[in-house]
Amino acid sequence: MLQKVLSQLDQDRDAAVARLQDFLRIPSVSTKEENRTDVAQCAQFLADRLNELKFDARVHETAGHPVVVARNEHVPGRPTVLLYGHYDVQPVEPLELWKTPPFEPTIRDGAIYARGAADDKGQVWAHVEAIRAWQQAGGVPANLVLLLEGEEEIGSPNLQKFMEEHRGDLAADIALISDTNQFARGLPAITYGLRGLVYEEIFLQGPDHDLHSGLFGGAVPNPANILCEILATLHDDQGRVNIPGFYDDVVPLEDKEREMWRKLPFDEGELARELGLEALVGEAGYSTIERKWARPTCDVNGITTGYQGEGAKTVIPSKASAKVSMRLVPNQDPAKIRDAFERAIRERCPAGVKVEFKNFGLAEPLVVPLDLQAMKLAAEAVKVGFGVEPTFMREGGSIPVVSQIKRMLGIDTLLVGFGLPDDRVHSPNEKFDLDAFYGGMRTAAALYARLAEMK
Amino acid sequence: MLQKVLSQLDQDRDAAVARLQDFLRIPSVSTKEENRTDVAQCAQFLADRLNELKFDARVHETAGHPVVVARNEHVPGRPTVLLYGHYDVQPVEPLELWKTPPFEPTIRDGAIYARGAADDKGQVWAHVEAIRAWQQAGGVPANLVLLLEGEEEIGSPNLQKFMEEHRGDLAADIALISDTNQFARGLPAITYGLRGLVYEEIFLQGPDHDLHSGLFGGAVPNPANILCEILATLHDDQGRVNIPGFYDDVVPLEDKEREMWRKLPFDEGELARELGLEALVGEAGYSTIERKWARPTCDVNGITTGYQGEGAKTVIPSKASAKVSMRLVPNQDPAKIRDAFERAIRERCPAGVKVEFKNFGLAEPLVVPLDLQAMKLAAEAVKVGFGVEPTFMREGGSIPVVSQIKRMLGIDTLLVGFGLPDDRVHSPNEKFDLDAFYGGMRTAAALYARLAEMK
Repeated sequence: MLQKVLSQLDQDRDAAVARLQDFLRIPSVSTKEENRTDVAQCAQFLADRLNELKFDARVHETAGHPVVVARNEHVPGRPTVLLYGHYDVQPVEPLELWKTPPFEPTIRDGAIYARGAADDKGQVWAHVEAIRAWQQAGGVPANLVLLLEGEEEIGSPNLQKFMEEHRGDLAADIALISDTNQFARGLPAITYGLRGLVYEEIFLQGPDHDLHSGLFGGAVPNPANILCEILATLHDDQGRVNIPGFYDDVVPLEDKEREMWRKLPFDEGELARELGLEALVGEAGYSTIERKWARPTCDVNGITTGYQGEGAKTVIPSKASAKVSMRLVPNQDPAKIRDAFERAIRERCPAGVKVEFKNFGLAEPLVVPLDLQAMKLAAEAVKVGFGVEPTFMREGGSIPVVSQIKRMLGIDTLLVGFGLPDDRVHSPNEKFDLDAFYGGMRTAAALYARLAEMK
Repeated sequence: MLQKVLSQLDQDRDAAVARLQDFLRIPSVSTKEENRTDVAQCAQFLADRLNELKFDARVHETAGHPVVVARNEHVPGRPTVLLYGHYDVQPVEPLELWKTPPFEPTIRDGAIYARGAADDKGQVWAHVEAIRAWQQAGGVPANLVLLLEGEEEIGSPNLQKFMEEHRGDLAADIALISDTNQFARGLPAITYGLRGLVYEEIFLQGPDHDLHSGLFGGAVPNPANILCEILATLHDDQGRVNIPGFYDDVVPLEDKEREMWRKLPFDEGELARELGLEALVGEAGYSTIERKWARPTCDVNGITTGYQGEGAKTVIPSKASAKVSMRLVPNQDPAKIRDAFERAIRERCPAGVKVEFKNFGLAEPLVVPLDLQAMKLAAEAVKVGFGVEPTFMREGGSIPVVSQIKRMLGIDTLLVGFGLPDDRVHSPNEKFDLDAFYGGMRTAAALYARLAEMK
């Protein structure tokens, strides 16, 4: 039966791509107030498509953007799989760098270009197409529950509450998420570890209005200079994060893990070239893969202060603010790291300026056991989908819901993603390879069959 | 005759204010391409008004914004005064902080609120009104040449060339500028020293596109972090500018100068409160007045990098840029300081990022001799205009044209300004006190009479 479903998917590819394009056309940018109705429309679009496939799909309102929950008719005794995904996307700025408009999905060079193509709409849609094929062939062989949210890109502020309120509907034996990458083109992967996240914005206030830098320069604290001096203290000369207690709870990398990763085909020079860099840099004593997957970081994501228009303005800014995010690894505690960060910044803030903070999200780091039965079944499904054994990797990104699922539903999550490292997620010209989409549809179809065999 | 002119000015105050408001309504923002026609219209407005006063006023096109030159009928043997002013203004952002729109001049609490009210339209207009009164009384007693430019706020890129081409028309015995402040309300001043300026923008380029901070954080150079680390090196822990050679040519303050300034009524705490600050801070070893008037500085005027919208975006920026300006004192050489600055930044820029610079202006610092005859005559005129002896001060701002006038026309410049320290020039809610405007008109009228006595 799986073979029939797979060949159906192979024959139906063009129509599947056309349906994905309809999904990608909806500008569901969750962080922008102006896109609120687009996000809601995107949720309804998903529910409508799933209802057409004989799933019971509903749009649930929240304090923020809606959540879509969909389920097939559950057969007693069958394993239940909770499939999580998100239909919201990152902002598109700077818009002028896009070769084609972010919400006019365009096929070129064997890929589909659009905001959300890989993160995460394209991967969600691979599952929708697998479901379509199974339903046409008599029904998905496992009990499926889809949980599709619209606030992943803003830190899922309302998901935890929603999951608590709908714990019963979400009960499952295993969770499944396709929002990660293959290791490389032709090397599909299962991700067993994720970094956590603390995202903060720092606000400095100096004079209560902008001042003429000639009349007042030298006499008053300049929040722009001070912000730089403070942010400059966040790393030492070895590239280590300079926040007291930051590394206290970090579990050291195991030798066998470092060994396994050392064997992966990875060309540092090639990645540097792809990114237009002379060299990759970072914390001393660790390989690039280790720094990306398994070491904590602290990056400035944006700074706003003073005059940013064209030409010159001789002004001492009244305010300066910076968005700063930290990636965490087991067993760092996001709340503890946030407190340590704020304490360090306050202590380093000189007299004459006031400092305030705003938090935009906390996510726990985690690792899923490699010897899990479901992990082995998932590996078989990837082999069916892509024709090669998966690589077992960790990822630098954060998927907060995985730890929430563990905490609230008591189940582990399989991260079987189809993206590629060069998909430019969160950047202009985001894309999703068509081969990844095709292999993803096949893998999703095989996952439902294999996971139905769970004991 | 002067008495008649003065009482005429006193009687005509309301009409004078109304005429100033017409001048202030023109949004002559020289740094914004979108205001180009407004700037041109502002030049024509000035020429029209001066021609109505029987001056020969002409609008001269340049490669940038026009220059207005106006002269009365010169009487042989009479001293000639070159009056310089500028009719362009700073940008108004952030617009939302203005209590009333910047180009709808509004009278409240004895002041006129508008962009350019004090810097420099209001002060230029005090002279226009003085000229009006003298012309009605039979003519300005000195030979006057008005040189009014529209690019002062962007570093006067075309003024030098213009002055070279019109050297003959601009020949004079002394130059006069009203674009500075009184020391305080009721304490009019003559400014005999100005700081110079170097204004640079630094551009850092890291990855050739923005990257996901989860997928790449820890592996690539982050231009936002690096920019902060570089800018943080610009000061040492004593508040001194940390650029090799920066202080080499600085002329130390003389004891008698420090003594004279120590006697000035200046309440540091009061200024701090006015600015909404807990404390004034700056270079160790110097008073606030010394730091503002006679010590060099380095201030960040603006930073642009990464995501600046609402909410969170987990991005590693591809680019980061900062506008940085340095105020100079005698005998620092702007070109030499610019080179030292760029050299220091390049040396401090780590591997993995590219750095470029753009210069937005160089101005020489200067001091005018206190024992100049014209300086004494000007002091008498201020006494006539405001009823009290002027204070002799220096100022932290830069007026590049003063050194150009010295270099090209070989004459000194009298800086007799009417602004007040709390006028918020370059900031939201810029204003010009009506008493300063009235006293300014009287002082201008008296200056023409006194300077006519120059030997």
